[in-house]
Amino acid sequence: MKATVLIEQGKMLQYTDMPKPEPGPGELLIKVAACGVCHTDLHYIEHGVPTFKQPPLILGHETSGTVAELGEAVTGFAIGTRVLVPAVVTCGKCRLCRIGKENICEQMVMFGNHVHGSYAEYMVAPAKDVFVLPDSIPLEEGAVIADAISTPFHAVRNRGNVRAGDTVAVYGCGGVGINAIQVAAAAGAHVIAVDISEKKLAWAKEFGASECINALAEPKVPKAIKKLTGGGADVVFEVIGRPETIESAFECVRPGGRLVVVGYTDQPVSLSAAKIMFREVEVVGSLGCRLVDYPLILQMCAQGKLKVKPLVTHRFPLNEIEQAFKLMKQGESLRSIVIP
Amino acid sequence: MKATVLIEQGKMLQYTDMPKPEPGPGELLIKVAACGVCHTDLHYIEHGVPTFKQPPLILGHETSGTVAELGEAVTGFAIGTRVLVPAVVTCGKCRLCRIGKENICEQMVMFGNHVHGSYAEYMVAPAKDVFVLPDSIPLEEGAVIADAISTPFHAVRNRGNVRAGDTVAVYGCGGVGINAIQVAAAAGAHVIAVDISEKKLAWAKEFGASECINALAEPKVPKAIKKLTGGGADVVFEVIGRPETIESAFECVRPGGRLVVVGYTDQPVSLSAAKIMFREVEVVGSLGCRLVDYPLILQMCAQGKLKVKPLVTHRFPLNEIEQAFKLMKQGESLRSIVIP
Amino acid sequence: MKATVLIEQGKMLQYTDMPKPEPGPGELLIKVAACGVCHTDLHYIEHGVPTFKQPPLILGHETSGTVAELGEAVTGFAIGTRVLVPAVVTCGKCRLCRIGKENICEQMVMFGNHVHGSYAEYMVAPAKDVFVLPDSIPLEEGAVIADAISTPFHAVRNRGNVRAGDTVAVYGCGGVGINAIQVAAAAGAHVIAVDISEKKLAWAKEFGASECINALAEPKVPKAIKKLTGGGADVVFEVIGRPETIESAFECVRPGGRLVVVGYTDQPVSLSAAKIMFREVEVVGSLGCRLVDYPLILQMCAQGKLKVKPLVTHRFPLNEIEQAFKLMKQGESLRSIVIP
Amino acid sequence: MKATVLIEQGKMLQYTDMPKPEPGPGELLIKVAACGVCHTDLHYIEHGVPTFKQPPLILGHETSGTVAELGEAVTGFAIGTRVLVPAVVTCGKCRLCRIGKENICEQMVMFGNHVHGSYAEYMVAPAKDVFVLPDSIPLEEGAVIADAISTPFHAVRNRGNVRAGDTVAVYGCGGVGINAIQVAAAAGAHVIAVDISEKKLAWAKEFGASECINALAEPKVPKAIKKLTGGGADVVFEVIGRPETIESAFECVRPGGRLVVVGYTDQPVSLSAAKIMFREVEVVGSLGCRLVDYPLILQMCAQGKLKVKPLVTHRFPLNEIEQAFKLMKQGESLRSIVIP
Repeated sequence: MKATVLIEQGKMLQYTDMPKPEPGPGELLIKVAACGVCHTDLHYIEHGVPTFKQPPLILGHETSGTVAELGEAVTGFAIGTRVLVPAVVTCGKCRLCRIGKENICEQMVMFGNHVHGSYAEYMVAPAKDVFVLPDSIPLEEGAVIADAISTPFHAVRNRGNVRAGDTVAVYGCGGVGINAIQVAAAAGAHVIAVDISEKKLAWAKEFGASECINALAEPKVPKAIKKLTGGGADVVFEVIGRPETIESAFECVRPGGRLVVVGYTDQPVSLSAAKIMFREVEVVGSLGCRLVDYPLILQMCAQGKLKVKPLVTHRFPLNEIEQAFKLMKQGESLRSIVIP
Repeated sequence: MKATVLIEQGKMLQYTDMPKPEPGPGELLIKVAACGVCHTDLHYIEHGVPTFKQPPLILGHETSGTVAELGEAVTGFAIGTRVLVPAVVTCGKCRLCRIGKENICEQMVMFGNHVHGSYAEYMVAPAKDVFVLPDSIPLEEGAVIADAISTPFHAVRNRGNVRAGDTVAVYGCGGVGINAIQVAAAAGAHVIAVDISEKKLAWAKEFGASECINALAEPKVPKAIKKLTGGGADVVFEVIGRPETIESAFECVRPGGRLVVVGYTDQPVSLSAAKIMFREVEVVGSLGCRLVDYPLILQMCAQGKLKVKPLVTHRFPLNEIEQAFKLMKQGESLRSIVIP
Repeated sequence: MKATVLIEQGKMLQYTDMPKPEPGPGELLIKVAACGVCHTDLHYIEHGVPTFKQPPLILGHETSGTVAELGEAVTGFAIGTRVLVPAVVTCGKCRLCRIGKENICEQMVMFGNHVHGSYAEYMVAPAKDVFVLPDSIPLEEGAVIADAISTPFHAVRNRGNVRAGDTVAVYGCGGVGINAIQVAAAAGAHVIAVDISEKKLAWAKEFGASECINALAEPKVPKAIKKLTGGGADVVFEVIGRPETIESAFECVRPGGRLVVVGYTDQPVSLSAAKIMFREVEVVGSLGCRLVDYPLILQMCAQGKLKVKPLVTHRFPLNEIEQAFKLMKQGESLRSIVIP
Repeated sequence: MKATVLIEQGKMLQYTDMPKPEPGPGELLIKVAACGVCHTDLHYIEHGVPTFKQPPLILGHETSGTVAELGEAVTGFAIGTRVLVPAVVTCGKCRLCRIGKENICEQMVMFGNHVHGSYAEYMVAPAKDVFVLPDSIPLEEGAVIADAISTPFHAVRNRGNVRAGDTVAVYGCGGVGINAIQVAAAAGAHVIAVDISEKKLAWAKEFGASECINALAEPKVPKAIKKLTGGGADVVFEVIGRPETIESAFECVRPGGRLVVVGYTDQPVSLSAAKIMFREVEVVGSLGCRLVDYPLILQMCAQGKLKVKPLVTHRFPLNEIEQAFKLMKQGESLRSIVIP
């Protein structure tokens, strides 16, 4: 089959032939309909994959498709069933899985990282971790639910514990941040969006932000947010992954409030211990999404409480994936998908 | 001043002259704009007031108005400020106030119960417990926020702990139930409404219910809800106050889920101890609303996330309040307000 | 091998020969050291087993032993390793497992119920759900950790959410109740024990109760507890399983407090809906224990924070198990173990 | 009356005459029995008082005494009642008081800071915030409950949410840290103590630590703790207030665990954003203690679940307070009290 493959760290993916996989017991063979293109892929291309499976490795972890073949002992799926494949699969046995934190499973397996992903015509995945995609969600665009929506859903619901009436600020309105905004708005929060791109702030409005702050025009974002909110936001999400924006986001939290770090950076952050202590501010991280929350997300998408289609601003055939990365770097796309 | 007064248990309120109150230190004199008419008043008329202030007692606890006079040492208000007066005031000193449960304050004082209410031209209230009504909320209709919206807000947010993606069922679509529906929907929940009136179920749809069950047409509501939800709702709210509906609502809860009792009944309920134990089902109560949550509610109303105006289906002058009670008994009104 | 087997509902277990089991992939063969004798067994004998495996069925679900054989692909155990086998094994895949509630797993498999238990010389169990028994815990007595300690541990920690300084009441000081007392005391709670047996109340004192109430001598237990506590206990555990004691326990809960139903009854309970609502009282159930909590329990037992040895008041050879049931019915034993 | 007074920042307190205060409405005049000597006082002497009341200011905020006079409208106290006075009083009206976080009250008033403290023969305090000291707690030593015990009680119970079976590490075994250890141990936790003084580590053992690490002997404390715990502690408390120890404490937290910052520093801390994000680690602050929790603490002290007497290693007359500060700086005392 055709696939887009990481051959060597530092080099662009290569469109080439790879063996079509076969489903083992409990697994599904999935004909890929679309795969979302994520910053994480770019990071892997440029800096290498953390748990490097012997290259060549097929990247891609935001997958929709249809069931093509059922492995031994699989029930609940038929040939042709429309499915969503989460970015990771979990062990169900470790301490973290058992306490309800499967999103940080100790034995987590990520597509396009530990095993082959879905920049390809076919992929295999364990049936226990694959979800039926409701008919009202378009098959191709639905792919982006598997990370761009699920990651902020977890951050907003489980880590920010956002509830109706909360005031929320979101730093960064890219593919993930925009969904932090739409999930928080759908959860009944008052949302303030922060970015440096007017284009992205316009998207933020469209996806539910009540107020927008352009950090280029407003050099003191925390001061502006404190003024808007009368002392700070209840919950602030940093969805960029830069120390200076994490530090700025921290400044926006009101006494007793919470900062949720969603963006990744390998740099340390410098925070005021006195504010953490005197104001009892909380700083917590958020990684991915629990698989058990996918049905909730799918229901919200199916009912239109979360918008899926307008998230996909660009589409490319699999062999033109380089275009998608280019747009992402330029900040021109919200989310691109590739179609095998 | 003119007021509508409870003279004797079992007799309808009387429209008569009462002395205009004067604000003490820390209090506001409020010119009443409107007062919502609540089942609780009817209960007080028919069964007496729990903590009977020496009659005559002015009833009414869902108040909007404007500041008419400031007592000594009051700041933060001006003559003419539009305000909302909660149904109760709290002590700020007891154990329950201090642990964040001021809605069940041990020294709670309720308008139209422990002290005079607002079926009158004027009332007094402690400034610390009065909230400014945002301009975008209509002054008269805004009155109903003070109980019809606030009580279910507390039930949904703090007692049901409803979060985005949850599946919620609401038993009873009257003045309070309809708002449990709209708050839960605004919180990102999938809402199933249950009632026996098609009129009320139509309102339920309008206020955010995704599915409606007419309990007259569907004798086995729990079975229907289990089918719709694949095993039961995450959170069920009973907003009627009858043992048989509380027991039916309990049956609808999925394993690990929660029943929130909002409706009042003086009758005991009979529940399966085995379901509570084997399914780890939770049964919790909800009373009124914490005053600290009013700003959150007002913000949601001001932004249109919660609808206020369409809640008020009928308006009467203060001396025609009997009409409001009549409609309420007939189930014809969602909420009536009276205007002094 | 020798085993004690349920042949037919309503008849006492029979000591007989059964085939020695063989461990499948991922399983351990365990040489049983001891098995605790539980009320549940008695219930199964008298009323049948809920999910009746084709008789003959070996009962017994509180097991300690040593590893006798390793199935394919098992790591982390050696022949002779001292182990504790929980009462149940969980699927790791269902919604409840994934949200951190594996103790109410939808696919739960219980020893001596869905599969053969440990009233036998040998048993098999999946290695992923078996725990190493620390050296400082005696092998035979350690068996009772697997239900008599683990069930109240879950009830106290996860369902009662008992924290240092809480006031707790426990109804019932039998094999499970006594451990609710000792876990709550070890968690820093002030514990009030309720029973009708002076012998059991003496045990209660020994295991950490600060105050004891004999319900025969004190007909109004809730009134007594309210007096002792100044208004009711923060958390009350019912560990008997009778409607009247559940109802009495409910009366002892202070405003904003919680009743945890640990005891099983197939009868409904009648509770004041008004108290649930006006006092925001919570009624929750508790079933078994999450396997993920076993290491915490084992650590507490190993350090002497929870006492194990004095829990075992009687020991019998496997073929004299009837004696154990007799003592249990008479309320003479705290916990009996049988030794194959 | 005689008092020990801050006259000027940077100078030692002066023992001198000050006017005896008079209780206003709702207040008590308290004859001071003892006052604990706290690092905070030293900080105020050296760096000034944050909200500087016009000097001279009587410092001291860990007070026990007896009621000497009742202000107007005070009930529930008699002349001679033994009392404990918390370090602060709260407003009961602000957002934070109302949501159950009175310990970070927006209008908090601290003794020996905003108002005169208790390094004096007498002090006044609002009756609503004063607690009766149980007879079994010695009057003079009881003083230290009001900060040295209450602050870590809040940190352990409310901010660390420590429950039975948790593994806890405590950085710093001084007057506050030692009580973090004893409260965590009393809450059923397995406690690992970290300090650089063998004397303090010996105290740590005495107050409930199961394991001790001398950071001078063990340069890589996080590595040692990870080894002891199999991956890190559930909750780590930093009770020193230095960036490097906060950063080291952070390293000791296991995935999904929590760091609680109790110690004060005006320096920023540098933390790995990647660990916060990938391991979903939580960093939270803790300040003082809610007044509503004092009765819980007093009950635990009265029952001997928390030790009070051995905390007081030194006693001085009020005019020799300088001795107490000297010992504190040398790390020779656990807690000193001064007696007027």
